[in-house]
Amino acid sequence: MKLHGIFPPLTTPFNPDGSLALDRLRQNISRYNRTRLAGYVVIGSTGESVLLRRDEIERIWDAAREAASPDKLLIAGTGTDSTEETIDRTNRAAALGYKAALVKTPHYYKPQMTPNAIAEHYLRVADAAIIPLLIYSVPQFTGVAVEAPLVARLARHSNIIGIKESSGNVQRVSEIISATPSEFQTLVGSASTLYVSLAAGAVGGILGLACVLPELCVELWQLARAGDADRALALQRRLLDPARTIVSDLGVPGIKYAMDRVGYFGGPARRPFLPLTDDERTSIDSLLASLVPAPAPAVNS
Amino acid sequence: MKLHGIFPPLTTPFNPDGSLALDRLRQNISRYNRTRLAGYVVIGSTGESVLLRRDEIERIWDAAREAASPDKLLIAGTGTDSTEETIDRTNRAAALGYKAALVKTPHYYKPQMTPNAIAEHYLRVADAAIIPLLIYSVPQFTGVAVEAPLVARLARHSNIIGIKESSGNVQRVSEIISATPSEFQTLVGSASTLYVSLAAGAVGGILGLACVLPELCVELWQLARAGDADRALALQRRLLDPARTIVSDLGVPGIKYAMDRVGYFGGPARRPFLPLTDDERTSIDSLLASLVPAPAPAVNS
Amino acid sequence: MKLHGIFPPLTTPFNPDGSLALDRLRQNISRYNRTRLAGYVVIGSTGESVLLRRDEIERIWDAAREAASPDKLLIAGTGTDSTEETIDRTNRAAALGYKAALVKTPHYYKPQMTPNAIAEHYLRVADAAIIPLLIYSVPQFTGVAVEAPLVARLARHSNIIGIKESSGNVQRVSEIISATPSEFQTLVGSASTLYVSLAAGAVGGILGLACVLPELCVELWQLARAGDADRALALQRRLLDPARTIVSDLGVPGIKYAMDRVGYFGGPARRPFLPLTDDERTSIDSLLASLVPAPAPAVNS
Amino acid sequence: MKLHGIFPPLTTPFNPDGSLALDRLRQNISRYNRTRLAGYVVIGSTGESVLLRRDEIERIWDAAREAASPDKLLIAGTGTDSTEETIDRTNRAAALGYKAALVKTPHYYKPQMTPNAIAEHYLRVADAAIIPLLIYSVPQFTGVAVEAPLVARLARHSNIIGIKESSGNVQRVSEIISATPSEFQTLVGSASTLYVSLAAGAVGGILGLACVLPELCVELWQLARAGDADRALALQRRLLDPARTIVSDLGVPGIKYAMDRVGYFGGPARRPFLPLTDDERTSIDSLLASLVPAPAPAVNS
Repeated sequence: MKLHGIFPPLTTPFNPDGSLALDRLRQNISRYNRTRLAGYVVIGSTGESVLLRRDEIERIWDAAREAASPDKLLIAGTGTDSTEETIDRTNRAAALGYKAALVKTPHYYKPQMTPNAIAEHYLRVADAAIIPLLIYSVPQFTGVAVEAPLVARLARHSNIIGIKESSGNVQRVSEIISATPSEFQTLVGSASTLYVSLAAGAVGGILGLACVLPELCVELWQLARAGDADRALALQRRLLDPARTIVSDLGVPGIKYAMDRVGYFGGPARRPFLPLTDDERTSIDSLLASLVPAPAPAVNS
Repeated sequence: MKLHGIFPPLTTPFNPDGSLALDRLRQNISRYNRTRLAGYVVIGSTGESVLLRRDEIERIWDAAREAASPDKLLIAGTGTDSTEETIDRTNRAAALGYKAALVKTPHYYKPQMTPNAIAEHYLRVADAAIIPLLIYSVPQFTGVAVEAPLVARLARHSNIIGIKESSGNVQRVSEIISATPSEFQTLVGSASTLYVSLAAGAVGGILGLACVLPELCVELWQLARAGDADRALALQRRLLDPARTIVSDLGVPGIKYAMDRVGYFGGPARRPFLPLTDDERTSIDSLLASLVPAPAPAVNS
Repeated sequence: MKLHGIFPPLTTPFNPDGSLALDRLRQNISRYNRTRLAGYVVIGSTGESVLLRRDEIERIWDAAREAASPDKLLIAGTGTDSTEETIDRTNRAAALGYKAALVKTPHYYKPQMTPNAIAEHYLRVADAAIIPLLIYSVPQFTGVAVEAPLVARLARHSNIIGIKESSGNVQRVSEIISATPSEFQTLVGSASTLYVSLAAGAVGGILGLACVLPELCVELWQLARAGDADRALALQRRLLDPARTIVSDLGVPGIKYAMDRVGYFGGPARRPFLPLTDDERTSIDSLLASLVPAPAPAVNS
Repeated sequence: MKLHGIFPPLTTPFNPDGSLALDRLRQNISRYNRTRLAGYVVIGSTGESVLLRRDEIERIWDAAREAASPDKLLIAGTGTDSTEETIDRTNRAAALGYKAALVKTPHYYKPQMTPNAIAEHYLRVADAAIIPLLIYSVPQFTGVAVEAPLVARLARHSNIIGIKESSGNVQRVSEIISATPSEFQTLVGSASTLYVSLAAGAVGGILGLACVLPELCVELWQLARAGDADRALALQRRLLDPARTIVSDLGVPGIKYAMDRVGYFGGPARRPFLPLTDDERTSIDSLLASLVPAPAPAVNS
């Protein structure tokens, strides 16, 4: 299974009363279907995974699978702190048609989440899962990083086929690529370091920024793959501030607002996320204005 | 509502097949009922809260409420990353007979969990909850600390009556006590700093160590309250190594094993917790031997 | 040698042109001589140790020794990153009349400053020094903390007689006291946790706040020693905000400005310290007004 | 002044009695003169700057300047915690023939080392210095990082011409390059991320690894500049483990031992550095064996 290219971790649209807005999700996907995105991650951190009930998660998986065009690879975010629950979600996603699972590190009980404990978690999930896994290391949320020696150990399991490395630490990404066999696929989660990570051997990205600017992210990936360093670097620089402000600093509410501004449905995030302030909106507006010559009018009326 | 004294955050017993062992829970509680513990916290971090399904949580709340003697104050751990889910759990616990709720900080989306976002979360839960709340700050698990100015702001809400401060940072505890009115109740979550925290004005502790050694923890609390500094300090020193090794270092599996050794039912923890190694068990054995003259034989056979 | 009580780490007065103002230093000391301070630390972090040349340091040691009354114990700050230079400074201070040396951890090459490397440093200095040593652990400046097992190991050397623990981490302080023999003396460097640290068995404090408010710090020490918990705690609370704002947040320039306000000579700090802003001065003024009923007019005109 | 290419931060050779071995330094330099290194940094962190007396530093600057061939650019490490001392050292180095100064961030008083304080430090040094400056940000030693907005502000000073960024954080490096004018020169201090940093627009590296393996480092720089991504990446991977083990983990004693093994004079490091253990030596031996087909016999007998 080839995971090359750019995947957005889809946001979860909500109605004003807080309930799921699955029609809005389908509309977003039908528009993403017309881009060169390689596929979709459904129920990642950007999808507000930890703010959704289990029954909501399954309805979202179902709706996204229906809406996705057949050429888009479907990856389900299935990781929780519990090994059993992670296995259960993974195989449910598989039953719903997902081709791979993105499994974040268990992290709540940090002092006990030693490399051995994390390894056991992944190996048990990999043994029991009927679809292949991607490790998901996102220390800015979990406080737990998966280092290269542990990735190398997990990469020996035939059902663990890659990693989404979201720390933005390119030395770590380089060490992971160097420590794993060439068929193990490293994707990154940080648009700010996409170009250099691809230069270091990553095969793609799962990028919150791709929810907002899918074609620019794909373009950067293609320039990098084509070896066009000058244009790739120039585009990378244009994406630095949007990646930092919209995704890293403002998070899900930032991504959703920016989606609203470029013609997707973003809408509100669930609490405890706060709505953006006026200043935060203005700052996103001006970043987008510098990137998108004539921004499409927002359609989420 | 007075929260003075020592509360254990009850562990959750499991059968060998991983299912809930509610009979074992009732046996533990019936034994704790005969101690001077002030009450019980049910579904805290030590109760493996994040490894339990919602339906399991409610069954545990129900069983614990039935088994607890009427003089023990019942506190439910109800915090999740979602504001709505936290409200829902809190009022469900109230309906099941719990008198207060312990609400941990939302934490997954760390960069967006600003003091304002955390404040809004607590104020919304406090507005909606039909029982009073305790803030629960446990940065070693969540990566998010609640500082004194935020506690002072939340303490103005009539339905937020106290805090469980688990960082072990006594300067922070002192600042919280100093910044809040005298009726606001500060409990600590670290047995290692119990004596000095009580000296600084804390009213009690919610201590993993109290699952294993309830009477020694109560004794330390009473010596401190009686102003018997010398004996309090001597006892505190005896508890330093057990608190660090059994609770901080080995976590839930350490507490459960130690409970098995002193006559409670501990049993296995759920994955991703690893079983203890032989060395870890031996280290707990020798710590307990130095504290408990003739340890009761284990009964969990 | 008894190190019980409160020691200020003396500030270093400078003339407007940046040169040493030794007369001002002598005036400050002659005023401190009339307090119940136990002694003085000369060339600590608060003395701008790392901003002074070696020849300046010796002139300060000399002037302070001359000005100090015979009942005040003199401790020289002698630690540098180099083992040899630390030995050389220590024995020079001894030759100038200092009774003990405060030796901070070497820290620049952090990844190599393992417990073994730090232990070797202290043992070599202790072997070569003709006066006894205090370990000085100040992780907020050095990024390196000395933990209880290492202190216990160093405490076996007959020439290492105590520690100044400045992290403010009372659990660590408790563990150090518990791990060392009763003749090993633990002093703390954080006024915010002075009371609880004394409750935990510390014998004194080396406190930046004591440069400004020597008598209040001594009073807190005496109340704690007398077991008067209520009055000690009340005074400790009054000192929390001054300790945090003047010492922790504003540092040497804050301490020096506050000294100016209460009748000592503070004066400017060397660059790269910035002068205080107007807001920072106002904030110190109001803190002092709440502590000192009728603040003495500043004399450093 | 063009700073493109690879610079080693020269190590400082010592005699067995701890005194400077300037002849050994000259021998090393005369051998480096025959490589394609762009120049030398004299008295950097790798040169044990903080373990040297001021008079020793000047003797080293003098000896190195004499030994360096005229085509090698000479950069002096002059940063200390004191603004005045830094200015003094910088102009002394200039008088001794150095063409630029590498000025590390002041860092001891971390809470007060705000961006404003650090900016003032650099601007004052830049105003007073008679040679241009490079900012030196090395948070693994100092605990203080210089972020892109501050670099952009400092880059406006005509006498601040570049930065050595040693954090290994490629996102930060990218942001710095993006935030500064094209004539501002960014060099990196981490061999592990050299290739990706060059891909991101860095112009060179000041690399501890270049003390040991100058030609391999230069080769990687040239492959990257030539756009030969495949060969550059392959070489980068070969250098990952040596960079991590010899430089990051084992530090100056590791670099010096490795120099001894490949024909330079490394010799002992000053205390508090510990000598390497046998295991550490063996690990370096095997790393070098994999890189250098037939290692030259050590000549430091």
